[in-house]
Amino acid sequence: MQRLSIRNRYASLVAGAIIAIMTMQTASVAAPQPAADTLPIERSRILTQPGVFGVFTMFKLRPEWNKVSATERMNSAAEVAALIEKHKDNVLVDLYLTRGLETNSDFFFRINAYDLAQAQTFMREFRSTTIGKNADIFDTLVGVTKPLNYITKAKSPELNAGLGSATYTGDAPRYVIVIPVKKSAEWWNLSFEQRLKEMESHTVPTLPYLVNVKRKLYHATGLDDIDFITYFETNDLIAFNNLLIALASVPENKYHVRWGNPTTLGTILSPENVIKALSE
Amino acid sequence: MQRLSIRNRYASLVAGAIIAIMTMQTASVAAPQPAADTLPIERSRILTQPGVFGVFTMFKLRPEWNKVSATERMNSAAEVAALIEKHKDNVLVDLYLTRGLETNSDFFFRINAYDLAQAQTFMREFRSTTIGKNADIFDTLVGVTKPLNYITKAKSPELNAGLGSATYTGDAPRYVIVIPVKKSAEWWNLSFEQRLKEMESHTVPTLPYLVNVKRKLYHATGLDDIDFITYFETNDLIAFNNLLIALASVPENKYHVRWGNPTTLGTILSPENVIKALSE
Amino acid sequence: MQRLSIRNRYASLVAGAIIAIMTMQTASVAAPQPAADTLPIERSRILTQPGVFGVFTMFKLRPEWNKVSATERMNSAAEVAALIEKHKDNVLVDLYLTRGLETNSDFFFRINAYDLAQAQTFMREFRSTTIGKNADIFDTLVGVTKPLNYITKAKSPELNAGLGSATYTGDAPRYVIVIPVKKSAEWWNLSFEQRLKEMESHTVPTLPYLVNVKRKLYHATGLDDIDFITYFETNDLIAFNNLLIALASVPENKYHVRWGNPTTLGTILSPENVIKALSE
Amino acid sequence: MQRLSIRNRYASLVAGAIIAIMTMQTASVAAPQPAADTLPIERSRILTQPGVFGVFTMFKLRPEWNKVSATERMNSAAEVAALIEKHKDNVLVDLYLTRGLETNSDFFFRINAYDLAQAQTFMREFRSTTIGKNADIFDTLVGVTKPLNYITKAKSPELNAGLGSATYTGDAPRYVIVIPVKKSAEWWNLSFEQRLKEMESHTVPTLPYLVNVKRKLYHATGLDDIDFITYFETNDLIAFNNLLIALASVPENKYHVRWGNPTTLGTILSPENVIKALSE
Amino acid sequence: MQRLSIRNRYASLVAGAIIAIMTMQTASVAAPQPAADTLPIERSRILTQPGVFGVFTMFKLRPEWNKVSATERMNSAAEVAALIEKHKDNVLVDLYLTRGLETNSDFFFRINAYDLAQAQTFMREFRSTTIGKNADIFDTLVGVTKPLNYITKAKSPELNAGLGSATYTGDAPRYVIVIPVKKSAEWWNLSFEQRLKEMESHTVPTLPYLVNVKRKLYHATGLDDIDFITYFETNDLIAFNNLLIALASVPENKYHVRWGNPTTLGTILSPENVIKALSE
Repeated sequence: MQRLSIRNRYASLVAGAIIAIMTMQTASVAAPQPAADTLPIERSRILTQPGVFGVFTMFKLRPEWNKVSATERMNSAAEVAALIEKHKDNVLVDLYLTRGLETNSDFFFRINAYDLAQAQTFMREFRSTTIGKNADIFDTLVGVTKPLNYITKAKSPELNAGLGSATYTGDAPRYVIVIPVKKSAEWWNLSFEQRLKEMESHTVPTLPYLVNVKRKLYHATGLDDIDFITYFETNDLIAFNNLLIALASVPENKYHVRWGNPTTLGTILSPENVIKALSE
Repeated sequence: MQRLSIRNRYASLVAGAIIAIMTMQTASVAAPQPAADTLPIERSRILTQPGVFGVFTMFKLRPEWNKVSATERMNSAAEVAALIEKHKDNVLVDLYLTRGLETNSDFFFRINAYDLAQAQTFMREFRSTTIGKNADIFDTLVGVTKPLNYITKAKSPELNAGLGSATYTGDAPRYVIVIPVKKSAEWWNLSFEQRLKEMESHTVPTLPYLVNVKRKLYHATGLDDIDFITYFETNDLIAFNNLLIALASVPENKYHVRWGNPTTLGTILSPENVIKALSE
Repeated sequence: MQRLSIRNRYASLVAGAIIAIMTMQTASVAAPQPAADTLPIERSRILTQPGVFGVFTMFKLRPEWNKVSATERMNSAAEVAALIEKHKDNVLVDLYLTRGLETNSDFFFRINAYDLAQAQTFMREFRSTTIGKNADIFDTLVGVTKPLNYITKAKSPELNAGLGSATYTGDAPRYVIVIPVKKSAEWWNLSFEQRLKEMESHTVPTLPYLVNVKRKLYHATGLDDIDFITYFETNDLIAFNNLLIALASVPENKYHVRWGNPTTLGTILSPENVIKALSE
Repeated sequence: MQRLSIRNRYASLVAGAIIAIMTMQTASVAAPQPAADTLPIERSRILTQPGVFGVFTMFKLRPEWNKVSATERMNSAAEVAALIEKHKDNVLVDLYLTRGLETNSDFFFRINAYDLAQAQTFMREFRSTTIGKNADIFDTLVGVTKPLNYITKAKSPELNAGLGSATYTGDAPRYVIVIPVKKSAEWWNLSFEQRLKEMESHTVPTLPYLVNVKRKLYHATGLDDIDFITYFETNDLIAFNNLLIALASVPENKYHVRWGNPTTLGTILSPENVIKALSE
Repeated sequence: MQRLSIRNRYASLVAGAIIAIMTMQTASVAAPQPAADTLPIERSRILTQPGVFGVFTMFKLRPEWNKVSATERMNSAAEVAALIEKHKDNVLVDLYLTRGLETNSDFFFRINAYDLAQAQTFMREFRSTTIGKNADIFDTLVGVTKPLNYITKAKSPELNAGLGSATYTGDAPRYVIVIPVKKSAEWWNLSFEQRLKEMESHTVPTLPYLVNVKRKLYHATGLDDIDFITYFETNDLIAFNNLLIALASVPENKYHVRWGNPTTLGTILSPENVIKALSE
């Protein structure tokens, strides 16, 4: 009974795997998670730590916004500023202007928080502001930062050094681009070794763009219908276009089942200026 | 005539199959179905029994909700509580808050009922409440619980023991995640033996997460355009993210034609607090 | 000139085919078509004859329905009953309640008619009733009944006998399910013999469910963007779930390009009770 | 250097192709284009000539239409008739009733014109009529008639004769069906000889239906996101269903990336009667 | 250890690649970027230079537009003209009429600008005009012009000469067509040599249409969810249809994952006349 014997052999493997996994459980599951009570929020720290949740919410103003009185519209910037101030110990708030560059949004938030429920509370309260009541949500992306996985000092020393060998030297970025990513079952079924190799090929052509494109990564599998949120800031959109062509030209791209859709392109302004631009 | 002889052989197979199936009919079709008149509904029992229908309904408040008077909005929590009380012998009602984390919903219901028509009646009457009249349905998922199919004591003893060897030990879950699943024709055309093997590979990496992620499964083939509704509760979203990456990394994932789309992420609150949060 | 000789041989085949098809034209095209003036409509007859058109129309009430006065809402049941009475010599009208179980509809019609234009006239006039004016159409499916094609006494005698060996013995069905089906170009390019074989494999596992699930089939190729409308009634949704899993588990499922999407699940009530349930 | 020599050989081919194409340019590009000033429009002529643009526009009435006064609604038929009369030297206007048979439209136009800009002007002015102001566009299809390409007397003499051997002999068609078609890159990359062979297989099973289904073809590649608009009239929908099954059952169907989606089924009435039916 | 040695070899390749790329960085990334302060905007220059951003925005008038007073509607042409005048040193504005030919738009803008933020500002301010407040955005496409990549004098001399051997000689184009393009991961993973070969095959059949179809290309990878925006002007739509069929018939078409969807077809009018046509 060839089939049964395979089944039996499989059963032993399963039993072994259970023991192995049970043993390593604490180590593998316990991702670094900064204390939620670390107060107050510090921009430079929260934007570089693992275990930080990111909530991106794209909004589009309804036509009714035009019927809100000019005074009320003009007061919106202050109202939003007050809300940000109220939550400043819980969330870091960034606001971007997309009106004029996007079809489905006029502005979007990026909220960073150690505790996702606090990001939810901020976004829920925003919905009760004057501008929030006059806007529809087009998209929400939820992710979390994690430690480097592939291009680490241990696993890929040359490339890790390459990543550290240059930093952004351009003018202050005026543009932001958010691109959600979902990878195929085939990707996730590759061995770690194979994925590392693909991520190395993916990383090599990005090195020249360290000087003119900033990047940040959030992981989203299970929290959202995507695997990653990739976030970029740049002042050189032609360099950015070349970077994305370079990323399209490596085999790792063949494992994308979603890359963008939507891509969101906006401009970087202070929250106050975003709201003011939409209130004119 | 090679083809005809194949046809003839096939015909005999068909005749044999009819007899065999007719004989086993009662056994195979008669799924355990608890008496519908078992009263009253007990949470711990209805959530663990087979033959229980689950209806998930995601709602999004219309802009008009903002124009409902504050008094009426504030009375909504009591109105919904009264409706739940009225139906408490027929349905178990859970309510979750998604506003701030999702694009297309602000809150959602999970109704458990021995009789689907009673779940329908509850949901229909909710539509006539003040908040129900000011909300649009974004999604409805209908399924039914059934006895374990693959990882049973008889079919997969080691893994079955593994599943029983640990239980949730984390803090009370604050987060809920609902992920609908549809599998391909290729999956359903595998032999049971093959599907068992795949489900074993699927189950192994989930064992370490028994301690920090709770799960529940509803079957939906034919009742809805999906095959399964998977329901999760956790307080550790990074562990959940790791669990879902583990589930993505086994061959069974290649048979998904839908996994999420939408994934719904919300927070677990009492019905009263969900409505209150939306009434502020 | 190898290519040209193939072309020549093909040309002869074409010429032969034209003659053959022209000869058999009357027989192959003339589908049985009951006289349209057969009056009045008899439920038991029109539901079993070939050549009968079926129009399924799914409706969702607009929020404005809540603002229609209670009196007017309550009069709707009588208004729809009068419309059905007016058209009773032309169309057979069934109405089902989906509110509480479906996202995109609150109720749906099934119209059976010997003349499609008369079904259109009924549905058009319904749009001018109070409830019709307050509802949006979510979906329309148009098909026509035809004589059995595959599992006939001549082509598949054992299975044909199996289909006749049992009838529905359950309680009066409380649930209705409508599932549209579209098959791939690969399916339609199979020989009839191959399709017959697949339909036999498809039919075998359905035999045990003759006793608890009723079925009806409409053909739709060219009349709509689907090939079939499959209609089910049952009082045992777990048996129905098992039936649909059985149908998913045969090779014929691999030829589906659409199966459901949407599946519509509702409850079976008199037209009067459907409208009343929606008027409360 | 094998690769370079291939490149060189390719370069010569390219150079040769440029010369060949430049030479034949006038012949290949100059499609027959009737003079736009041929006045007035004659139905029988414009519907059989090549070089005629066809614009199909599907409309759905908004709920507001029900609030337009009965008088104004009733005047709509005359208003539309006057518009048709005003443009009768520029466009041929057909109007069809889909309410009751379609989800997304209540009526649709087919405009035939020698000059596309004149069809645009008519459709734009219709938008300013009372009914046009109360309707949303669901779909627009733009195409142009061209001379027969495949089944010509020269290329496929037997089938060409077959096409000429029968004409419509049924009752006046009461039904219209419009089916847009898009073919795959694989189709367009077949040699003309291969496509001719597939179109012959496609045409053979259609011959028996010449007597009960009328057809017309518009080409749309580049003018719209489809390759063809296929238009049918019939009084025998079961024959039409059989015809479409026959067309699904030939290999050419495997090259469809879109066939229908939407299929539009309506009834053939005078413009006046279409508007009246929608004004009741 | 075969695998490790492959990894080692790969690691050296990676290290080498980093050095090589770092070295060539300035050259490869520094795309030609005209000075943003080059004033004023000159049509003939900005439409032929690389490094120019193109923003296409498709608008559809809301039903409310019909309720704007005739005077206010009529003043819109002047209001838009004043806005164009205000921004004339920053952006080149083209406006096209699609009402009557398209489902989802009534008019669209093409903005050319050396600085994308200035195009954004113009489009944002347009949203505050009377017509802008009464229109919804259906689509936005953002791209940038770049120097010729494939068919250059150095890489493909014969075809480059062919492209230069003819220019548009037809009547002033009355029609505009915009077709977005996205190419597959397989395309971008081809070697440059292979892509050059495919683009040559793509270019050859376009040469005869130089005389009657004008074209312009914007690159969009990363700026939008497409790779290219292809823009055409013509007065001969049958020639254009033939050109697009020719482009469909080369292997390069097999690498399209999106080609059109939507294709936008409109007429070329002055901004004043577009607004006037929509104000009648």
